Amino acid sequence: MSLIVNDLIEDYVRKKLNNKDSYFDYMEEYAYKHKVPIVQKEVAKFLDMITRIQKPSKILEIGTAIGYSGSIFAKANPETILHTIEIKEDSFKIAEENFKKQGIDNVVQYLGDASQVLNEIKCKFDLIFIDASKGHYQDFFEKSLLLLEEGGIIISDNILYKGMIASDEFVVRRKITIVKRMRSFIDYITTDDRFETSILPFGDGMAITKIK
Amino acid sequence: MSLIVNDLIEDYVRKKLNNKDSYFDYMEEYAYKHKVPIVQKEVAKFLDMITRIQKPSKILEIGTAIGYSGSIFAKANPETILHTIEIKEDSFKIAEENFKKQGIDNVVQYLGDASQVLNEIKCKFDLIFIDASKGHYQDFFEKSLLLLEEGGIIISDNILYKGMIASDEFVVRRKITIVKRMRSFIDYITTDDRFETSILPFGDGMAITKIK
Repeated sequence: MSLIVNDLIEDYVRKKLNNKDSYFDYMEEYAYKHKVPIVQKEVAKFLDMITRIQKPSKILEIGTAIGYSGSIFAKANPETILHTIEIKEDSFKIAEENFKKQGIDNVVQYLGDASQVLNEIKCKFDLIFIDASKGHYQDFFEKSLLLLEEGGIIISDNILYKGMIASDEFVVRRKITIVKRMRSFIDYITTDDRFETSILPFGDGMAITKIK
Repeated sequence: MSLIVNDLIEDYVRKKLNNKDSYFDYMEEYAYKHKVPIVQKEVAKFLDMITRIQKPSKILEIGTAIGYSGSIFAKANPETILHTIEIKEDSFKIAEENFKKQGIDNVVQYLGDASQVLNEIKCKFDLIFIDASKGHYQDFFEKSLLLLEEGGIIISDNILYKGMIASDEFVVRRKITIVKRMRSFIDYITTDDRFETSILPFGDGMAITKIK
């Protein structure tokens, strides 16, 4: 059950957004079976669309997981180069296999803690997608700013975290630290005068931030 | 009460997205007082963001109303030319005044029925925004296709119409014809092989469609 968008609405929208590419069905089944969190179908489709509209030369993804959203980014524009960071070795390898099986060769994978890896990356990106440890968004974002091309955007996923960020009514006690950090991150991206930020309250909540 | 996104979530997001431009506060108050439907704050902010990302040379808006979304489009990129169609003369005039008071001079306004006006427009657009009579989206969309630049997008607003489109549970009897038409429109834009369509289940529901 979603606390953000009504279940009946989510069901309807997901049914309308069938995958035209069957490998995505396979990855969705795998993720479901192995309880790996991947982006919701309507978020996946939106990431595909925004990538087709922006046509980024280089994308940086923080949090590869099994390479589901990475496959979307890499396939939306074949001329885009995707750089993607993953902390877990098993996920890194599964993603590697998923990219290979789809013939995706426009990907650079990093194995390591994003907080470290981000310090070492030298090139710049038009689109940076943050989808990793929810307690560290502020750090990921600030480091991402240094890697952002002029006119580029940062998309932060899961910023409403099952609704918990919006209302204490939804907060699970053991998540209170993450919730506090995410709330302070949202205040930062929506009030800092250097940024324009749009918040999309669907999926698990996304923010799109652009430097003015 | 929204049947799409949970009210607590909407409230939180709207509070975070304060207008930096006070004329938007004025238009929002006016719309509220005079019961003119305008796009929700989170939709407004998203339209601003997508316009900054796509940087369209020309935008076509179907349904000016009081010029609220039009002001967003016109202000996001000063080099963008906005063409906007309105059927009601009083709305046309209010919008004209709102544009003038904000010093917006990159707008071409049309007074008339969009089904007719669309046949007469000669130039092409990078972004077309459909936000008019919900029973006529199919017609507006097909005519818009002929006016779309290569690589352009069509954004259709209110496609989930207070949730009624997603489930019969939400349908008000007197709206049944509009609901049926909108459902068939959604089937068209999500199944036709010429299009890529993303559905955003927030606000009153939006679809972004791009020609492949």
